[in-house]
Amino acid sequence: MFNAIVSADTLGTALDSVSVLVEECKLRLEDDGLEIRAVDPANVGMVDLTLSAAAFESYETDGGVIGVNLSRLQDIAGMADSDQLIHLELDEETRKLEIAIDGLEYTLALIDPDSIRQEPDLPDLDLASEIVLEGRDVDRAVTASDMVSDHVALGVDDTDELFYVDAEGDTDDVHLELGREDLIDLTAGPARSLFSLDYLKDMNKAIPNDAEVRMELGEEFPVKMHFDIAEGQGSVTYMLAPRVQSD
Amino acid sequence: MFNAIVSADTLGTALDSVSVLVEECKLRLEDDGLEIRAVDPANVGMVDLTLSAAAFESYETDGGVIGVNLSRLQDIAGMADSDQLIHLELDEETRKLEIAIDGLEYTLALIDPDSIRQEPDLPDLDLASEIVLEGRDVDRAVTASDMVSDHVALGVDDTDELFYVDAEGDTDDVHLELGREDLIDLTAGPARSLFSLDYLKDMNKAIPNDAEVRMELGEEFPVKMHFDIAEGQGSVTYMLAPRVQSD
Amino acid sequence: MFNAIVSADTLGTALDSVSVLVEECKLRLEDDGLEIRAVDPANVGMVDLTLSAAAFESYETDGGVIGVNLSRLQDIAGMADSDQLIHLELDEETRKLEIAIDGLEYTLALIDPDSIRQEPDLPDLDLASEIVLEGRDVDRAVTASDMVSDHVALGVDDTDELFYVDAEGDTDDVHLELGREDLIDLTAGPARSLFSLDYLKDMNKAIPNDAEVRMELGEEFPVKMHFDIAEGQGSVTYMLAPRVQSD
Repeated sequence: MFNAIVSADTLGTALDSVSVLVEECKLRLEDDGLEIRAVDPANVGMVDLTLSAAAFESYETDGGVIGVNLSRLQDIAGMADSDQLIHLELDEETRKLEIAIDGLEYTLALIDPDSIRQEPDLPDLDLASEIVLEGRDVDRAVTASDMVSDHVALGVDDTDELFYVDAEGDTDDVHLELGREDLIDLTAGPARSLFSLDYLKDMNKAIPNDAEVRMELGEEFPVKMHFDIAEGQGSVTYMLAPRVQSD
Repeated sequence: MFNAIVSADTLGTALDSVSVLVEECKLRLEDDGLEIRAVDPANVGMVDLTLSAAAFESYETDGGVIGVNLSRLQDIAGMADSDQLIHLELDEETRKLEIAIDGLEYTLALIDPDSIRQEPDLPDLDLASEIVLEGRDVDRAVTASDMVSDHVALGVDDTDELFYVDAEGDTDDVHLELGREDLIDLTAGPARSLFSLDYLKDMNKAIPNDAEVRMELGEEFPVKMHFDIAEGQGSVTYMLAPRVQSD
Repeated sequence: MFNAIVSADTLGTALDSVSVLVEECKLRLEDDGLEIRAVDPANVGMVDLTLSAAAFESYETDGGVIGVNLSRLQDIAGMADSDQLIHLELDEETRKLEIAIDGLEYTLALIDPDSIRQEPDLPDLDLASEIVLEGRDVDRAVTASDMVSDHVALGVDDTDELFYVDAEGDTDDVHLELGREDLIDLTAGPARSLFSLDYLKDMNKAIPNDAEVRMELGEEFPVKMHFDIAEGQGSVTYMLAPRVQSD
């Protein structure tokens, strides 16, 4: 059983953060809210989303897992104005999702969860540095780096206590340094890893400019980026595997 | 003789409602205003537009018919700001239309009316149901249905007194029900017909969200949709032939 | 040595006015400001830009010439908000341009000036007519003419004291007349020349709608168009060679 009402804005934001990595995913219906974990086909980028029951106008379920096509669900949510409510109800018999928006009913065929790529475990990693920064600084770093290269180094200089971004192109370079005064918070430890900009660009699309992004970084380790959605009633974690340092 | 002044906004709206169906049309210059009737090349969708002399700042004619290329005329009208006036004058000698916008003169070659597809007669039909609804509800129905199918059933349930829209796709379905309280007005009679979404999408483009649309509907009959433009000084009627019910 | 700070808006506007004609150009670093002169590969359109030192927040140089890729530099300037400051500094050793925007550093490889097309001399011409008009009227004339033809005649009727634009297409024509009352100023002399719309469209893109454009025009002579940028601290001159009159 699943019966929930949520604002179009909240649902759309949640779906967007997952759809940058995968086309289909499993929605895990938990007592305390929705959970989505997914990994992209190349096993490089992962996302872990939770949307707590409190993010919904109403939320009832007795558990279960359903498989959905994300772009289809995004299109439907996009039919509503951002402050309109969307009613989601699982039809147990047909195994379809009934989606209602102000008199409009959309019957969405679900996907067999077993046919969807297995959910990843986002490993606990003991990463030496933690950087808390604004989403707009992630955006600047990614956008500028993308002008010169297809990969970028993220690192922390633990002597000077600053977070840096290094992108080296064939002719041009981009460098960004953010010190304590530019960051919301910094726990400095030795950290530097190289990442694919393709993935960072996709993740960056889903990070609001005014979000507070908590980034965990190590030496040749994956990066984790956490941020809240739905006014703190939901959270997203991205994990991105490092590229092998070529230089 | 034809000599008229009209706001860019009014002229543009009128042209838009015809250009969704045809590329060229005949402008019938009547004493009391402009008339356009046109049918698409497949004989499926028809439009009947009248723009009364009162919709113009000034309007003079001794009658006649001229043929125009609609997208060309739209481009010219689009040169003006929406509240700017457009002066239209027929040059009897050259048989060209002189279009002036604040010092800018555009000389538009006309098309021989005899070379344009014949104007259709929009038949009087005795349709059992009449539904009056907002343009934005037409838009929602068409946009949602288009997500799952290429055709849609429009109908009236005369027992429950509601207007419904049914689109059945291969996997997903869309259903919209609007009762008396959701409609501006309803005359309920037995009615259900199937229509091509391609045509409805085109017609929908020209229907303002805040327009009051009067829809006439029967059983396996064409649908008629009427709405006003130019603050009530003009009116548009679309007629769309039904598709054969396949189910 | 070159070390300057300028608003993103000012730098962007200056670059835009040159990039409509060429992809690479020489930046001449003069004591009193920046100068760019460039001619398009076909030798038809020229631009002469000056951006005085007063247009910068700070400006220091001991002279020299550097070669830049314009679209690259535009992309970088586009990273900044329009009121953000951009710091430009030439690294003498690497011969690269260090561009800093609020902590973000972009190292731009320069182009050997000798590999860039030679700067043109914009000849002094004694043109009979001078027309001062608003940028929006240039825009209307160019946009409307482009609807019917690929070339346009600009002229002055020195008897009736008016500036006119004539575009003759295969079927349609465009004509615009602006008299003394429509112009900011007019010095009327015999003038009529034919120009390529491709070039005028490009130049028009860089002319703000509210700019005061001073146009110099003769008989079968190039046209010159002058306008200010950066609140009068910079100026742009376009010169466009005439086409041979075909009629």
